[in-house]
Amino acid sequence: MQTRDIDYRCDDINLRGYLALEENADGERPGVLVFHEGVGLGEFVMERARRLAGLGYVALAADMFGDRRQANNLQQVATLVGALRAEPEKLRARGRAALAALAALPQVDASRLAAIGYCFGGSVVLELAREGADLKAVVSFHGVLTTKMPAQPGQVKASVLVCTGADDPLAPPEQVADFENEMRAGGVKDWQIIAYGNTLHGFTNPAADGSMLRTALYNEQADRRSWASMKNLFDEVLT
Amino acid sequence: MQTRDIDYRCDDINLRGYLALEENADGERPGVLVFHEGVGLGEFVMERARRLAGLGYVALAADMFGDRRQANNLQQVATLVGALRAEPEKLRARGRAALAALAALPQVDASRLAAIGYCFGGSVVLELAREGADLKAVVSFHGVLTTKMPAQPGQVKASVLVCTGADDPLAPPEQVADFENEMRAGGVKDWQIIAYGNTLHGFTNPAADGSMLRTALYNEQADRRSWASMKNLFDEVLT
Repeated sequence: MQTRDIDYRCDDINLRGYLALEENADGERPGVLVFHEGVGLGEFVMERARRLAGLGYVALAADMFGDRRQANNLQQVATLVGALRAEPEKLRARGRAALAALAALPQVDASRLAAIGYCFGGSVVLELAREGADLKAVVSFHGVLTTKMPAQPGQVKASVLVCTGADDPLAPPEQVADFENEMRAGGVKDWQIIAYGNTLHGFTNPAADGSMLRTALYNEQADRRSWASMKNLFDEVLT
Repeated sequence: MQTRDIDYRCDDINLRGYLALEENADGERPGVLVFHEGVGLGEFVMERARRLAGLGYVALAADMFGDRRQANNLQQVATLVGALRAEPEKLRARGRAALAALAALPQVDASRLAAIGYCFGGSVVLELAREGADLKAVVSFHGVLTTKMPAQPGQVKASVLVCTGADDPLAPPEQVADFENEMRAGGVKDWQIIAYGNTLHGFTNPAADGSMLRTALYNEQADRRSWASMKNLFDEVLT
């Protein structure tokens, strides 16, 4: 497997992504973007990118903060995430820049692209879906589901899969209900929501032990199940 | 594959189930009950039983109405289903009788049992889970989720998977929310709910064309996805 950093730009910001792909594969392959949590692009999403490469995809872990900035504490997370959440157009532009960088790679079949995201990154993939990005599928893992710019009728092209912890205080039942209504009102053709019982925020990340964020806790079962559901969806729409 | 009718009793009622299993398999295998829709035990659940047998399980399509009675119209469905819904203890006893019949078969490993159900049958498997039946897993496909006897703390042993249409008027969002709260209050150790967008009632049955029940409509995608999720859960808990 080949992994390397890949620089791309959005306006005047340098973004440093992380690319993973099988070296010995021939021909163009489907591409998958991986959007990081509020802590920034680190080992967690890199490992997911390598796992996707192992499944035969060209995987690009995107950098949403610039110069691969990372947060060391909740205050820094709030600052970095807050700046983008406050300006959803800017957030979407950063996401689009990653999509363009992935689509431009010679190994990638630009007609078969998808995006997954964790926590903050889950919000990013949903924003890309809302604006009608050319993605076959988006998968949000414990993402925040609210938006300032709800999906408009006919706009969403991607199949949408939301994997959420039933006890995630960042995505409580009322928020999930609102999201369902957004999908209905937006006439989204393919969407599904999986709620895992006894599951908090951050359930995919083995490092989530409640120390940085009390309500973020790894759940091996929900991690495994949600990854399997993502794979199934990709098998449907990317092959 | 071997298929045959199998008679068992509940109180003074004769129940005629339908058994499907691989003939050439050796040793005891996990057993799976299949509970029918409100129309009764017919070709639809028989086919599902054969499919389960093809996966290596001993599958018993249970008869909940006695003498394999079937309904030909909505009025008959209402009468047959209503009689059992009105007396949940009787409904549970019928379900338990099927479980005992399956567990008693020489080909079955009685320590590895599960139950799936469709529409009315979905309610049946949830009732069995609620009373703490010795099941590793129950899967409800477009089942009604309400109950007169909610799960009490510590009672449920089975892993619970609910597959529901997001637009099913028989399981509207408020009902799903109540069910989630029942699972939380009952301290159910393993539960998950999958909601499929643009999906009505009866989505697994190719014969559901809205003619008998306007809001029951086959959805090939949701049928395929929910079956795959059931298989994944069985791979986890029955092997």
